[in-house]
Amino acid sequence: MSSGFSSIDGGSATSPGGFTAAAAHAGLKADGALDVALLVSAASCATAGVFTKNALRAAPVIYDAQFLSDRPGRVRAVAMNSRVANACTGPAGLEAARAMARAAEEAAGLPPHTALVLSTGVIGVPLPVDKVEAGLRAAAAKLSADGGPEAAKAIMTTDTRPKHCAVRLEMPGGGAPITIGGMAKGAGMIHPDMATLLAVITTDAVSDPNTLRPFWKRVVDRTFNAISVDGDTSTNDTALFLANGHAGVDPSRDGALWKVFEEAATAVARTLALAIVEDGEGATKRLEIQVVGAQTETHAREVGRAIARSTLVKTAIYGGDPNWGRVLAAAGVAGVALTPERITLQAATANGAGWLTLASGGATALADAQQARAIFEQKTIRLRLDLGLGRSEAVVWTCDLSPDYVRINSDYTS
Amino acid sequence: MSSGFSSIDGGSATSPGGFTAAAAHAGLKADGALDVALLVSAASCATAGVFTKNALRAAPVIYDAQFLSDRPGRVRAVAMNSRVANACTGPAGLEAARAMARAAEEAAGLPPHTALVLSTGVIGVPLPVDKVEAGLRAAAAKLSADGGPEAAKAIMTTDTRPKHCAVRLEMPGGGAPITIGGMAKGAGMIHPDMATLLAVITTDAVSDPNTLRPFWKRVVDRTFNAISVDGDTSTNDTALFLANGHAGVDPSRDGALWKVFEEAATAVARTLALAIVEDGEGATKRLEIQVVGAQTETHAREVGRAIARSTLVKTAIYGGDPNWGRVLAAAGVAGVALTPERITLQAATANGAGWLTLASGGATALADAQQARAIFEQKTIRLRLDLGLGRSEAVVWTCDLSPDYVRINSDYTS
Repeated sequence: MSSGFSSIDGGSATSPGGFTAAAAHAGLKADGALDVALLVSAASCATAGVFTKNALRAAPVIYDAQFLSDRPGRVRAVAMNSRVANACTGPAGLEAARAMARAAEEAAGLPPHTALVLSTGVIGVPLPVDKVEAGLRAAAAKLSADGGPEAAKAIMTTDTRPKHCAVRLEMPGGGAPITIGGMAKGAGMIHPDMATLLAVITTDAVSDPNTLRPFWKRVVDRTFNAISVDGDTSTNDTALFLANGHAGVDPSRDGALWKVFEEAATAVARTLALAIVEDGEGATKRLEIQVVGAQTETHAREVGRAIARSTLVKTAIYGGDPNWGRVLAAAGVAGVALTPERITLQAATANGAGWLTLASGGATALADAQQARAIFEQKTIRLRLDLGLGRSEAVVWTCDLSPDYVRINSDYTS
Repeated sequence: MSSGFSSIDGGSATSPGGFTAAAAHAGLKADGALDVALLVSAASCATAGVFTKNALRAAPVIYDAQFLSDRPGRVRAVAMNSRVANACTGPAGLEAARAMARAAEEAAGLPPHTALVLSTGVIGVPLPVDKVEAGLRAAAAKLSADGGPEAAKAIMTTDTRPKHCAVRLEMPGGGAPITIGGMAKGAGMIHPDMATLLAVITTDAVSDPNTLRPFWKRVVDRTFNAISVDGDTSTNDTALFLANGHAGVDPSRDGALWKVFEEAATAVARTLALAIVEDGEGATKRLEIQVVGAQTETHAREVGRAIARSTLVKTAIYGGDPNWGRVLAAAGVAGVALTPERITLQAATANGAGWLTLASGGATALADAQQARAIFEQKTIRLRLDLGLGRSEAVVWTCDLSPDYVRINSDYTS
């Protein structure tokens, strides 16, 4: 059976037709690395955005949210910068975000009010608008259909590698294929709802904002909102989905194709989300938490998130310590009613052949301690927590908490 | 002006009249250290308890909560053990908690159903009931009015020092004084609502459960629920307040005395709470967060807690990095509506003479970077966040997050 889509080697946000991108060094990063990027679409995009739930939204978030509320079908470009988040910068910060959008529109020869903006970096520092504008002009001069990977590089902060990918849908009847691509940055502060996470997913499918909005919310909930690095939630987190219609096919008109389209978009977003977890600051291991048997998917996700943000769970994972009691204790803080007697906690065995039961009926299962330790010493650890309360489930991913995380974050501004 | 009460050198839970205590090594801790304690009152105590909000309550919590719901005026003893939390142990765990209470009652020659139980340590491991019972018998044989400090030692887990104190009230008219004493343990996992935090506060005042319940909730909210070490919330957290009436005075009958009594109880609880923060796993620094200008005290506390549990704030504090943008970003995740333009963030200057404004009106205040760094390099850092929305306030305390925290917690079970 075909999955309905396949991965594109070296794919990026410019893999879908009609998208170009480029990056530049605008002097924000001290080491001469790329720090400004521009993504441009040949046609107006239907766009959906999911933004941080932090009560203190950074200026670019305020700008984009307002833009997508007013003109969700008019996006032609996304201007991006790293190193300075333009957060907690007051009215001047919003003016800077506007100036950045305007600079992108002018540099790329686009009509006014067609560019979104994304910023990431240090909070509370004014955006050096002149530098960003010059960087956008430099990027606009070399926009290319191969520019996606470079743009992904420019939005990195403490990321150690760029994150981009793309997939192509196998079209029924062999019609013109739909492509979905994307880029993201993450590393520290990653947590659901969300955290210095920037993601831009592009497609050449035809769509409209009203169709994309609930679709994109579902995809983000199961991908970018299902990962956590340190439980913090940033002022800037934004995940955008842009559909420019270049392929001429609206997948929502065909039930089977629409299903494949959502699966493909989820695969792109999940690939980027997992790349963020694996590149978490100081991360040495990955933890996958499947929560099943919940009354609702939201309950399942909340329990998974509570486990994923527990520093005690994350330090135990770092140390390869099968301290599964901490997993249950962390589940208990999710704000979801639990019935201890119905709970079962299992870990995927090291050979991948099955599951080792660590606790059931609210009590320890007296699992083989040596086997449990072998499981927790793996690079990727998979836990399955059955709440025994219903039929809904969710998967959440996180990384361990290492001494390196502390080292990286103890002196970030200087 | 007199504060109305004074600290007792070396004070403890047995400083108030009519309380005795002792500890024993029951073989739970591998190194021969004290691991079981017994506190006994000569008369029945009116008792109030505040318990963890974790959905998976440990057996001792279930036992005590039920006890205090049924017989809040009948407590004569508290039996305690460290090393094994008796959490996530199912119905057998509840039976073990009952057996532990019974053993304490029999060992101390008390009537049935008069003992509470407290356990702390590893989750998911069955309580070695025989050992605990033997330990309680050994402790009962040497109960003493000087036993408070020893009992405080026996409940330590990763704590590096025992935590106990007491104060004596200055009585109007020079009557028989009221004494309030207490002990606590904390270290890792400490977070509001609450986290492997055990606290027992005793007094020889006369009182009744209905008076104590709201009183104790207020005191705990401003002390034990206002501290955070790692944002985790344990299955076992319990704070008890016992009044045995030995001094013959009911402070609630005199408005002025009742006020002093609450201040004195708050001072005892705050001393213990701050001792927990300073002894947090791997802690090298203390952070005090005053949140003022909130619409309600609960809002103020929630904002303070959100800052206190941010690993990014805590690593910045460890590194002496004046990354105040992280403080604002963390405030934004509290679930409290904020108005950026009204927010002011200040830090107490190193010389203690005033406040340095770090941000106001939602934007950076361009504070002297050198002065800011000098402040953040101190051992104790005090921040003041004015939300500009009302007149309520709260204070929250936390410690920094150091590489040692990770080391301590990466291999705790073995």
